[in-house]
Amino acid sequence: MTRTIVASATREIVIGFDQPFCVIGERINPTGRKKLAAEMVAGNFDTVIKDALEQAAAGATMLDVNAGVTAVDPNATEPALLVQTMEIVQGLVDLPLSIDSSVTAAIEAALKVAKGRPLVNSVTGEEEKLEAILPLIKKYNVPVVAISNDETGISMDPDVRFAVAKKIVERCADFGIPAHDVVVDPLVMPIGALGDAGRQVFQLLYRLRNELKVNTTCGLSNISFGLPHRHGINAAFIPMVIGAGMTSAIMNPCRPQEMEAVRGANVLAGTDKDCTNWIRTYKDYKPGEVHAPAPVQVNAPGDGGAAGGRRRGGREARMNRG
Amino acid sequence: MTRTIVASATREIVIGFDQPFCVIGERINPTGRKKLAAEMVAGNFDTVIKDALEQAAAGATMLDVNAGVTAVDPNATEPALLVQTMEIVQGLVDLPLSIDSSVTAAIEAALKVAKGRPLVNSVTGEEEKLEAILPLIKKYNVPVVAISNDETGISMDPDVRFAVAKKIVERCADFGIPAHDVVVDPLVMPIGALGDAGRQVFQLLYRLRNELKVNTTCGLSNISFGLPHRHGINAAFIPMVIGAGMTSAIMNPCRPQEMEAVRGANVLAGTDKDCTNWIRTYKDYKPGEVHAPAPVQVNAPGDGGAAGGRRRGGREARMNRG
Repeated sequence: MTRTIVASATREIVIGFDQPFCVIGERINPTGRKKLAAEMVAGNFDTVIKDALEQAAAGATMLDVNAGVTAVDPNATEPALLVQTMEIVQGLVDLPLSIDSSVTAAIEAALKVAKGRPLVNSVTGEEEKLEAILPLIKKYNVPVVAISNDETGISMDPDVRFAVAKKIVERCADFGIPAHDVVVDPLVMPIGALGDAGRQVFQLLYRLRNELKVNTTCGLSNISFGLPHRHGINAAFIPMVIGAGMTSAIMNPCRPQEMEAVRGANVLAGTDKDCTNWIRTYKDYKPGEVHAPAPVQVNAPGDGGAAGGRRRGGREARMNRG
Repeated sequence: MTRTIVASATREIVIGFDQPFCVIGERINPTGRKKLAAEMVAGNFDTVIKDALEQAAAGATMLDVNAGVTAVDPNATEPALLVQTMEIVQGLVDLPLSIDSSVTAAIEAALKVAKGRPLVNSVTGEEEKLEAILPLIKKYNVPVVAISNDETGISMDPDVRFAVAKKIVERCADFGIPAHDVVVDPLVMPIGALGDAGRQVFQLLYRLRNELKVNTTCGLSNISFGLPHRHGINAAFIPMVIGAGMTSAIMNPCRPQEMEAVRGANVLAGTDKDCTNWIRTYKDYKPGEVHAPAPVQVNAPGDGGAAGGRRRGGREARMNRG
């Protein structure tokens, strides 16, 4: 059984086919959030703190941490800023973190200060990326997100995307990194632009699970880009990908409709034993509510301290992930 | 490609893997609805009329019609009452109907007055049932729901349920009824009582689609029986069964959350071409609404005349289907 282990200083989480879906909170990311970028550059981490606490309270399994505040000379600013952001978040919540950067030096700096066993987000099939990132993955003995594109870009042919994923897994093996430490992102396209986007992903997930035997993730909300009532599309997509074998997603845990879909799919996939988490979350649910209120309890284990994060705003899908 | 054709006097619908999910409206059924049963016995069809119009307006693909008002000597009352109910519903909406009865004489009486090509709900693997129902199916050239239980009851072993479904399909073939006119109900158990109920169904759907190549249906809300916030479980279950290959369900189309899940899953399965139905239904959606309002238009083709049925009440899952 494929098991990807991630950990904070005090808590270990397993990503796997027999585990509850791993929700990687996407909010701590200045990409496309100008106000947050400006705050972080100015050394103001109020929004980062708020996003960390809200996502933990809303039931995130892990938190993604990105400090890509600028496209101009990120090598100069991003390592120190990512380290600072990681340390703040680690001090606030005990969730495992995902180190999200396109800057190798920032990833290495963050790995040096990370507690537990973080996930690195990400490597691609590009030669330069593989050569830069995989030695760090091996050296720090951490799992990595493998995005299935390469120098030629993102293929519209799912067979090519599978081949890229396979190549990355094989290159990882050359470096001594086991397949269970590679979490493949098959890349989710907007269904409004590509009518076949859903079926492509379901087919890829089937092959990734059965042929490569790897865990998987995606930037979930990309699927609904450009459509009205995106939460409804996201909330239908989540049970479908879970049913097809996806084991984690980078998403906004502060969205009640999406988190309800995750919890419902966990019940149906048999990973919420005795429906314990569902019953605890929704036992007092009243029709018309978007989310069952429950006491906010930061640092609460698992999804038990649900609710709290009831904000309805949020940023658009990131089509370009760092 | 498996195609089950059902029709009203004026409209033909195809049930199939490449078609939008077929929503069979379950409301016209006095089982467990004492008030409705009393009305129907008294010759008052106000609720039947209301249920027919609301389900059509809410986007049902077909309507199930059941007149099982009593367990005491149903042979004496049910045939005439089912005929009367069918005729009223046929006069109101142009949706194909499902003739739902455990009384053979009632099914035959309804078949005589049905316009178009109704679905017969149902036959089981019981010898007596097979001998009674299959000749009617052949004689009237209509499709039939095949429930995968037999004289021994409902097996908890999905392999046994598959074997029963296979036996029914084979018996149908003996009668000259093709597999594409058999819509198998693999039987959905409550996930709160049987933690494996979801995985059982997904596995059965896979085999039914790939080995028997049949369309499928189920009493959808059974899955959430006994749990809090049942609509949330149902709404997660719908995309999962659609992803696993289920092509229809007997359900309440007046539930906005469930119908949103159907429409979302149709988009993602690629059966809502260009997301046309999704965009039409939700283009003016506002956060916090449970359903996008749209003009009620009875007799509107397809799912276009959505909304209207905004009632939040409804009856509990039928665990025993006639």
